[in-house]
Amino acid sequence: MKLTILGCHSATPRINTNPTSQVLEIKNHMFLIDCGEGTQVELRRNRIKFSRIKHIFISHLHGDHYFGLIGLISTFQLLTRETELHIYGPKGLKDIILLQLKLSESWTSYNLIFHELNSKASELIFEDDSVSVYTIPLKHRIYTNGFLFKEKSNERKLDIKAVEEANIDMAYFRKLKQGADVFNEDGVLIKNQSVTKDPQLPKSYAYCSDTEYTESIIQLIEKVTVLYHESTFLDKNENLCKKTKHSTARQAAIIARKADVQCLILGHFSTRYNNYDDFKNQAKEEFNSVLLAEDGKKFQF
Amino acid sequence: MKLTILGCHSATPRINTNPTSQVLEIKNHMFLIDCGEGTQVELRRNRIKFSRIKHIFISHLHGDHYFGLIGLISTFQLLTRETELHIYGPKGLKDIILLQLKLSESWTSYNLIFHELNSKASELIFEDDSVSVYTIPLKHRIYTNGFLFKEKSNERKLDIKAVEEANIDMAYFRKLKQGADVFNEDGVLIKNQSVTKDPQLPKSYAYCSDTEYTESIIQLIEKVTVLYHESTFLDKNENLCKKTKHSTARQAAIIARKADVQCLILGHFSTRYNNYDDFKNQAKEEFNSVLLAEDGKKFQF
Repeated sequence: MKLTILGCHSATPRINTNPTSQVLEIKNHMFLIDCGEGTQVELRRNRIKFSRIKHIFISHLHGDHYFGLIGLISTFQLLTRETELHIYGPKGLKDIILLQLKLSESWTSYNLIFHELNSKASELIFEDDSVSVYTIPLKHRIYTNGFLFKEKSNERKLDIKAVEEANIDMAYFRKLKQGADVFNEDGVLIKNQSVTKDPQLPKSYAYCSDTEYTESIIQLIEKVTVLYHESTFLDKNENLCKKTKHSTARQAAIIARKADVQCLILGHFSTRYNNYDDFKNQAKEEFNSVLLAEDGKKFQF
Repeated sequence: MKLTILGCHSATPRINTNPTSQVLEIKNHMFLIDCGEGTQVELRRNRIKFSRIKHIFISHLHGDHYFGLIGLISTFQLLTRETELHIYGPKGLKDIILLQLKLSESWTSYNLIFHELNSKASELIFEDDSVSVYTIPLKHRIYTNGFLFKEKSNERKLDIKAVEEANIDMAYFRKLKQGADVFNEDGVLIKNQSVTKDPQLPKSYAYCSDTEYTESIIQLIEKVTVLYHESTFLDKNENLCKKTKHSTARQAAIIARKADVQCLILGHFSTRYNNYDDFKNQAKEEFNSVLLAEDGKKFQF
């Protein structure tokens, strides 16, 4: 599982700080999460192939999370994309995009499929053989979802040496990976565990931006491999959290601790701060495993 | 008159090329012309004070000319702007902006005034004591206007030494600047031309992007100080002009020659080219005074 931070700052794009956007590589998928202004340029800078992006998840309709979407959709069109594109986001997003395509008389040559969200409960919005994606209802000034990306159980790994010694035909390898016992060439039943190894534990990534401190998400994100939680403010500006419905780094860390996640990434920093170490330090007082997002940073889990 | 090129490339923003946007400083006005994605960052990079921008002119609703507008409007709001903002652009632009403001529940604290354009004839869209702005109807795939910015006649300049010698009271200076003859302290009529100098000739700037070659604009832009004319393609790709309704550098130069302008700036280069000298060379075969736009370049006239 690989996470590339294209932008991790709140509010307005500046010369050296990008608004929110991330790319999550998980089980051969390349999911784009949020798409602030300038995202397409950051995708280029990070050498991410446009054609690999087939699913875009938009958390909410504040500009720092989606103003780059219409440009990306248009660029895909100019590059004569043919692959269909799925967009998951709040009701209204489809109207915004289609109005602009209509007025520019530039309909896409590829299939643009909107999955508009308006449920206040968590729901399964994408699923295939390897990954499921659920919404995480957040508490912000307007309707907002986080997203939970979960690998499905991985296949067992063959112990090649043991398989050969057990004299099992290749035709049964698929069944072995799925955990079944099989007969060998001599008609002897071979126990699965004697010729396979435990698979890697499935990984999961919870993306939570933007939100005020809310324990309602804890159950949903419990024990995830990585939690990205917004931390717009430091302790000294906690008073602004209530008004703007954002969180402090400390609050993000309390959520991480209560949800017993393996690792916390902080982001969505207010542009009022210059030193981001304070975010880490304040969060570390509540939870041990804290990382800082940074534009252009890549995390491998 | 000062022109800052924020971006001068067509189609998609890239790491080192910005879509179209310019700032024209003329008679204490700071006019923003077109506003592709990333314009607000380029304004910061070029140290242009946001608060000085009170009028934005959008030529047409292709993304490389306006996708940065909603972000700029939102940023003005985040910076608690109070000054009213006038936006001139094709019918439909207001719907696009208001839909997005509505869905983000972020109405502006400042007055946002739209001047929607749909006339196919040139019209006066802004005027004050010092400047007039007219549309220049262009021929592109969708409804498009260029803009003609004209200084009004400048006041005559006082020849201070001559004025003193002629014994004229200060109260008459205003009349002298306006070209009138006045009586001096001794009751003698003083001829205006004997105590004033000719004013600087009024300057004018014609912005023409995007358009196919069309002689219909020549009369409107005749003898302007500076013509910016799109030149998306070189001669070798002239066949693309018809299909996309763009111009070659040579065609832009022919327009410049026929309109007898003082100076031509080329821009809106297709990202297929790396060497922009070819644009200048091909244009120079038709017209002598040719300059190339360049992201971040400043021209003083």
